[in-house]
Amino acid sequence: MFDSDQKLKIAVVGSGAIGCFYGAKLQQAGHEVHFLLRSDYAHVKQHGLQILSHDGDFVLDTVNAHTTTETIGECDLVIVAIKTTANTVLADLLPPLLNDTTLVLTLQNGMGNIENLSATVAMKNILGGLCFICANRVAPGVVRNQDHGAIELGEPEGGVTERLQNLAAMFVKAGVPCQAGKHLKDTLWRKLIWNVPFNGLSIAAGEIATDKILQNPQLLELVTYLQSEIQAAAKSDGVDIADEFVQLNIAKTRTMGAYQPSSLIDYSAGRAVEVETIWGEPLRRAKANGVAVPYLEGLYLLLKGLVELRCEK
Amino acid sequence: MFDSDQKLKIAVVGSGAIGCFYGAKLQQAGHEVHFLLRSDYAHVKQHGLQILSHDGDFVLDTVNAHTTTETIGECDLVIVAIKTTANTVLADLLPPLLNDTTLVLTLQNGMGNIENLSATVAMKNILGGLCFICANRVAPGVVRNQDHGAIELGEPEGGVTERLQNLAAMFVKAGVPCQAGKHLKDTLWRKLIWNVPFNGLSIAAGEIATDKILQNPQLLELVTYLQSEIQAAAKSDGVDIADEFVQLNIAKTRTMGAYQPSSLIDYSAGRAVEVETIWGEPLRRAKANGVAVPYLEGLYLLLKGLVELRCEK
Repeated sequence: MFDSDQKLKIAVVGSGAIGCFYGAKLQQAGHEVHFLLRSDYAHVKQHGLQILSHDGDFVLDTVNAHTTTETIGECDLVIVAIKTTANTVLADLLPPLLNDTTLVLTLQNGMGNIENLSATVAMKNILGGLCFICANRVAPGVVRNQDHGAIELGEPEGGVTERLQNLAAMFVKAGVPCQAGKHLKDTLWRKLIWNVPFNGLSIAAGEIATDKILQNPQLLELVTYLQSEIQAAAKSDGVDIADEFVQLNIAKTRTMGAYQPSSLIDYSAGRAVEVETIWGEPLRRAKANGVAVPYLEGLYLLLKGLVELRCEK
Repeated sequence: MFDSDQKLKIAVVGSGAIGCFYGAKLQQAGHEVHFLLRSDYAHVKQHGLQILSHDGDFVLDTVNAHTTTETIGECDLVIVAIKTTANTVLADLLPPLLNDTTLVLTLQNGMGNIENLSATVAMKNILGGLCFICANRVAPGVVRNQDHGAIELGEPEGGVTERLQNLAAMFVKAGVPCQAGKHLKDTLWRKLIWNVPFNGLSIAAGEIATDKILQNPQLLELVTYLQSEIQAAAKSDGVDIADEFVQLNIAKTRTMGAYQPSSLIDYSAGRAVEVETIWGEPLRRAKANGVAVPYLEGLYLLLKGLVELRCEK
């Protein structure tokens, strides 16, 4: 275990907007950060990373850029930020980064990521976190963070452990609002209260931003049905989500204007959509617990159909 | 009452593909048919009607074309074939056509049309029919009937009455396969077994033809969920629909190839979509009977949202 003042060796696996943003903040705070890159490798190696953020722009001229994890080697902390549609590659990517004490933190969307990691990483070394951020890669090596940026961390088995608090403190010292949640599943279900309806309907209702969803009475009704189902599914998993939380969620979305959820951006750009972790896995858990979630199931089937048919076009 | 050999004075209100096709067949069979037209009036008045059909093309050089029902006057039979999204205009259009014995036959899609007519026409004079036809208006005054063409008639209060049999015989003599069903609601619910999933998903799944729906496992699963709900809703309304009927329905759709349901054609062309009669009214009836139909409700809300948002674009 490390304390929050220690300078760590950190690998960022999956250097999209999320990975680059948080990795850059941690490097700026003095940690030794290594980025695993693919398409942006040559650009980042030569020009570094540029972060455009509502709380201050900055540039990292020199970045430890890698195309394989072999050249990174063992780390204190591995941050997993690849898209969940590529989860199967982690079994190959992670082993060179790991020793017996390496902590692996997944910041990925949706459910099933801990379980996926546990095939490769000792369960005791896995932590999860959810990012509340509106960030996009706007050009090679350039990430714009429009809004927010907080992380809520959680232990897969629950409990506000010392390591969780230390990790949260490390992020806070790097300028990232971060808190330790009481249980990872609590955080995951709460985030799905937003992702399931808004990511889903932004695609299914004709590629529209969140403001259009909120303005349309029928779509808003569908949002509330989906949220009620997620509440019921969460409850069956031991997580109570208050109605006030759900209402606040809607109210906050109203302030976001014409926001395009990440899944919509992926869909519109012809990229893979995280259908299984955002809709499929919660659906399967609800069913396993005997909770009927037909609106979620209808949306899941429609989205999966839409994505598959788009690929055929 | 008329017998099936009588030559009738018939008004066709709503001269789209359905109205023109059946009206032309009846005129060809010797009836005095009057067509209420809008955009195609001048063309049809001058050039008549042309029917391209799998069972033989024909032209009617002279057509009784009208722009108001006042110039038509009282009829023996009124065939209502306007789109159900324009149902409110019938209260103004129909009265000049009616006397105490005028039969009014609605060939419109979905549910709620009898109830709408009953505000203007004596209930005892209303009959319904469902068309199993793949017809489109391909140019002004030109209708192409690709396939089928049968009508199933029904009494709103049930029973294979003499007038229903006579009406069916009249259509059969005009070359239109036609039978008298045992109850109109029976026919309506059976047609919804097809219209609800296929018209709906052809729009919601990204403007696709029926073959794409059948080929995609997720969309096909959604079809079966929607059909099960319609079965349950029908049952609560006293209509038993056998599983074999539903399976045959799917099997027949497989033979139709890349068929575009009428609602998809309307949606893609930016025209009104019959959301309330195909999805809204069955949904309300199911709910009134205490039957949960969440897949139908989700699809209804999504379609209504899609149509409204399309109008804003």
